[in-house]
Amino acid sequence: MIIILKLRPTAGQIAAVEARVRELGYEPHKIVGEIRTVIACVGDETENGDLMSIKSMDEVEQVMPIQKKHKLVSRDAHPDPVHVPVGDLRIGEGSFHVIAGPCSVESREQILAAAHGVKKHGATMLRGGAFKPRTSPYDFQGLGKEGLDLLAEAKAETGLPIVTEIVSETHLDMICEVADVLQVGARNALNYSLLTTIAQSGKPILLKRGLSATVKEWLLAAEYIVSKGNHNVILCERGIRTYETATRNTLDLNAVAVAKLETSLPVIVDPSHGTGRSDLLLPMSRAAAAVGADGIIIEIHPEPEVALSDSAQQITPDEFGVLMEGLKPFIEAAGKQLVTA
Amino acid sequence: MIIILKLRPTAGQIAAVEARVRELGYEPHKIVGEIRTVIACVGDETENGDLMSIKSMDEVEQVMPIQKKHKLVSRDAHPDPVHVPVGDLRIGEGSFHVIAGPCSVESREQILAAAHGVKKHGATMLRGGAFKPRTSPYDFQGLGKEGLDLLAEAKAETGLPIVTEIVSETHLDMICEVADVLQVGARNALNYSLLTTIAQSGKPILLKRGLSATVKEWLLAAEYIVSKGNHNVILCERGIRTYETATRNTLDLNAVAVAKLETSLPVIVDPSHGTGRSDLLLPMSRAAAAVGADGIIIEIHPEPEVALSDSAQQITPDEFGVLMEGLKPFIEAAGKQLVTA
Amino acid sequence: MIIILKLRPTAGQIAAVEARVRELGYEPHKIVGEIRTVIACVGDETENGDLMSIKSMDEVEQVMPIQKKHKLVSRDAHPDPVHVPVGDLRIGEGSFHVIAGPCSVESREQILAAAHGVKKHGATMLRGGAFKPRTSPYDFQGLGKEGLDLLAEAKAETGLPIVTEIVSETHLDMICEVADVLQVGARNALNYSLLTTIAQSGKPILLKRGLSATVKEWLLAAEYIVSKGNHNVILCERGIRTYETATRNTLDLNAVAVAKLETSLPVIVDPSHGTGRSDLLLPMSRAAAAVGADGIIIEIHPEPEVALSDSAQQITPDEFGVLMEGLKPFIEAAGKQLVTA
Amino acid sequence: MIIILKLRPTAGQIAAVEARVRELGYEPHKIVGEIRTVIACVGDETENGDLMSIKSMDEVEQVMPIQKKHKLVSRDAHPDPVHVPVGDLRIGEGSFHVIAGPCSVESREQILAAAHGVKKHGATMLRGGAFKPRTSPYDFQGLGKEGLDLLAEAKAETGLPIVTEIVSETHLDMICEVADVLQVGARNALNYSLLTTIAQSGKPILLKRGLSATVKEWLLAAEYIVSKGNHNVILCERGIRTYETATRNTLDLNAVAVAKLETSLPVIVDPSHGTGRSDLLLPMSRAAAAVGADGIIIEIHPEPEVALSDSAQQITPDEFGVLMEGLKPFIEAAGKQLVTA
Repeated sequence: MIIILKLRPTAGQIAAVEARVRELGYEPHKIVGEIRTVIACVGDETENGDLMSIKSMDEVEQVMPIQKKHKLVSRDAHPDPVHVPVGDLRIGEGSFHVIAGPCSVESREQILAAAHGVKKHGATMLRGGAFKPRTSPYDFQGLGKEGLDLLAEAKAETGLPIVTEIVSETHLDMICEVADVLQVGARNALNYSLLTTIAQSGKPILLKRGLSATVKEWLLAAEYIVSKGNHNVILCERGIRTYETATRNTLDLNAVAVAKLETSLPVIVDPSHGTGRSDLLLPMSRAAAAVGADGIIIEIHPEPEVALSDSAQQITPDEFGVLMEGLKPFIEAAGKQLVTA
Repeated sequence: MIIILKLRPTAGQIAAVEARVRELGYEPHKIVGEIRTVIACVGDETENGDLMSIKSMDEVEQVMPIQKKHKLVSRDAHPDPVHVPVGDLRIGEGSFHVIAGPCSVESREQILAAAHGVKKHGATMLRGGAFKPRTSPYDFQGLGKEGLDLLAEAKAETGLPIVTEIVSETHLDMICEVADVLQVGARNALNYSLLTTIAQSGKPILLKRGLSATVKEWLLAAEYIVSKGNHNVILCERGIRTYETATRNTLDLNAVAVAKLETSLPVIVDPSHGTGRSDLLLPMSRAAAAVGADGIIIEIHPEPEVALSDSAQQITPDEFGVLMEGLKPFIEAAGKQLVTA
Repeated sequence: MIIILKLRPTAGQIAAVEARVRELGYEPHKIVGEIRTVIACVGDETENGDLMSIKSMDEVEQVMPIQKKHKLVSRDAHPDPVHVPVGDLRIGEGSFHVIAGPCSVESREQILAAAHGVKKHGATMLRGGAFKPRTSPYDFQGLGKEGLDLLAEAKAETGLPIVTEIVSETHLDMICEVADVLQVGARNALNYSLLTTIAQSGKPILLKRGLSATVKEWLLAAEYIVSKGNHNVILCERGIRTYETATRNTLDLNAVAVAKLETSLPVIVDPSHGTGRSDLLLPMSRAAAAVGADGIIIEIHPEPEVALSDSAQQITPDEFGVLMEGLKPFIEAAGKQLVTA
Repeated sequence: MIIILKLRPTAGQIAAVEARVRELGYEPHKIVGEIRTVIACVGDETENGDLMSIKSMDEVEQVMPIQKKHKLVSRDAHPDPVHVPVGDLRIGEGSFHVIAGPCSVESREQILAAAHGVKKHGATMLRGGAFKPRTSPYDFQGLGKEGLDLLAEAKAETGLPIVTEIVSETHLDMICEVADVLQVGARNALNYSLLTTIAQSGKPILLKRGLSATVKEWLLAAEYIVSKGNHNVILCERGIRTYETATRNTLDLNAVAVAKLETSLPVIVDPSHGTGRSDLLLPMSRAAAAVGADGIIIEIHPEPEVALSDSAQQITPDEFGVLMEGLKPFIEAAGKQLVTA
């Protein structure tokens, strides 16, 4: 931590800051510059007291942390890639997985058609929401328990592991009976109470980046899970909120590249929510493979035009087949193995 | 809802869209323009099927909703101002309330000193976090149940009603025993499961705007609560996430003015989180009063430089007294009555 | 400048960085932490070579500047408020000025009606665009030279000084013949070539903040002008670009408060562009006065519904009169003198 | 254009809006909904008077344009891909070009070393700034005319066409003597006066997207150039400004995909400015190729650690060689021909 003092501090002011630094368990090193005096603090920022509190001292202009707080999920700490086990699958470096299925489970026919369709064209996991967090209370909120039962049926029929969203701690047991991977959506991505509770289930967790989370916040959300002893975290970039309205969100592939450098966790990409436009799914899926993602998660619906949610970004199983064909050369160029069911 | 068709649609394509519009319960009206053909749909968008699904039809270029979805919290529906009862207080138009207290409850001494300090200088409610959602799992997470007990003691001593954050549905009973107002923080502002559960307690709810929520999403979050029968919602603007780094967030007073036009609910402002800088609290509090806010919520700590969280934005009770004096002329200019304990 | 080295640097690597620091004219101070080694560089960052170049050395993780680059416009350097002379007026601390007029000069009738209207209700300067930077090449681009002549006529009739935008270095002489204040719009706010050229005219310059400029960039744009010897800069906040769509831009009053702390230059606010909504002009003008602005600039049109640009944010002279009455108590509360023509 | 009236309009109010619509040259079509009344306006929005002015009528709630304003650069109007000629090269669909060189021209040795280095590894054009728009007036502003002479020498030695930035209309003749492509940087991307002036030179123009320009504004900036008769526009995505600080900007590959759908112009990507990090250049260049870009522009410096500007994002010619090798499989997967000098 570096502390920059206000202009022209007195000896007494400097001493006061140094004393407070020591109180917090660090060793202060004063450097008197031509214009500014700074105090560098030596000590482990993740172990000792919170140096940021010094910011409120009158003598202090600015406090700059120099250590990163995500230690368990950092590549420094764990250079070897993490492979998250889902049934027989291993999600992570070296292979490329495609998770596909409808935004929401809507009916028996719909989810079975989707499940067979996505399996046929190469998806290895089935996604589908039984509990949907919708912006308006008047929009379709998902089938709930009935949706979970339908997912179980689709899994029994196709053998595809299930990825489904959890929106409440109180649903944990019910969802764990069906889900192979618990998905945390963008709106709950900084809901630390939910993260802490579900971590303890030991289930793999697909952690979406928050609507406007920084990469740092995203990795620290993962750190909440891992620090509870659950290392099976799959990071998922799903677009951030910017001023641009041509796309629903701004899919941020830079963040994927940064996350791959900073952690050893698998990172996948959601081009459906990331763009909100079915006509951008192929180019952005290709770019996701090229940037180094370990997979994608994509919305498929047997009849997008009657979908009860997010219809503009869903494509049919046949269109999904075309997308998979168009994507393969880029997975290969990235030196990854496309895993298929 | 207005549907814009792609360039040069055939008669068959137009008919297909019209048929689907009728299926969803609306009456289509076709308008053939020189360049574009549009179909206007007549029907109540909040009652009938979701027209947005039409966006995925091949023939359709764009779909534009024209109705707002927040009906229960709209000023159209409820022109009279809502006054939220908190003990003997009534929060809402005509008066100005100041909620003050530390970011986190840290100790018996700290919360009692803060409570007496804020009461002395005119606050009518005491804020303090017992459960803290922190970006890093290694930062101080609040005292939990012990913090609630200390808040109860501060209330007993000073008579100030308590505003405290709820971060988990599972804490509801425990928090309701102490809290007069349940605060929903920015990270949980779109956690609809939490909103729905706590609405049912009937307690007044101070609903912060999400980190990057639009005004529309903020009002619809309130609609989640009100549609469960709980009309006691206090909206709170606390800064949004932008590219600017001179302030911790960008306190958005435009949103306060818009919310006051669109709803009859009370709207307050949090300049502490909104700016993250104690040197901006006075000017932004003044601006909040001037723009029409019904109150502010502000962080006070007996010793900001040893605070366990958010120290840079907290001020002492005495500095709070100075702020209150500097704020009064603006509350008066706004034609509001400053209510004091 | 603080240089943070990568994890576990060798003695040779540390020496290499220190050598480069000395080469650039600074004195390196090494601090070996438990986790990180940092090198603090002593020397005036605005005088010596650019230390940022060190960022590209393999050994270096991060480089953090600690000095601000805007020295001529900083309050540290010039604690006394700057008062910019415009005719007999002095813009700056202590008084409050209102600049008003149409977005664009459209006709003789329109500009004269606007000029008389704004003077009657208390504006001290007349604004009006003769050259308009419009997003589409097919939108009205202003009357050009004819517009300047009409502004000259309005000035002759009313005595109001003229504020008008300059969009090209090649227009400087022509515009200086009429304008009392040169306005630099948001789209040209980082056009350093324009800033440098017009600075040399010696005319007062109203410098809008760029569409997405940080406060730091805004102040450095002012520094471009002042460093050419022209101290007559009026800063103008006009809203920044964010994800929010309820308002055209997000008027950032935080930035006004920050600019007032950091510089001694006058700072005014443009609620018309800042919000794009005539129904928000009064609350945001009040908030501008309350936050400490030295004035506002506002769009007035005799007939907003036939305006050739920005009609949604313009109000009539009579509505302007109502706004001025509603604003006065807040100017007074701020301890400022409203100056009227 | 669709006009939404306020709630419960009277017959007289509706008639007033219809009359104004006709006055502006459109045919109004009234649709009375259950909740809202809307008026659809038939007529070419790019030819008739500006309907947006209706927004300021008291009776009107909202006005929604339905036509896009970029007509000359739209793929609707020009379905065939545009190929921009630069010397013997043709930039556009089917091939992939790499433009490389230093941020700034700094010396004879530097630019010649860079030119030979980039040519050796496959770049087809040399970039280098002689006039640099820098945030601070105290930073290196480029060598000016001397820099242009050095670029001419590098061109004579290597045969590489020159891409260099123009920051002032007054430099046009001087720069046209040397430049094969005029680059418009992000800060001048909405400087319509500059765009209009340089369009008339007939030179190819590399048009960067503004710091926070929407795709729509970017395409309309291109429309300014094309509407002056110059069709040789190369669009360049270079990152937008968001809240994320892990990267210097957020390189927005969604925008590349959207621009490829909406226009027939070539679109290239600048990963150097887009990320500001040399460690992200390879993954983001790969993603750019995968998303469908027609090339990249990248910063190379013989000695990045002594660069006078943007050193953190520049790489050496040898590192550039490695990048080119890593990029090739993705260009091939995209079905494009990598053109080399």
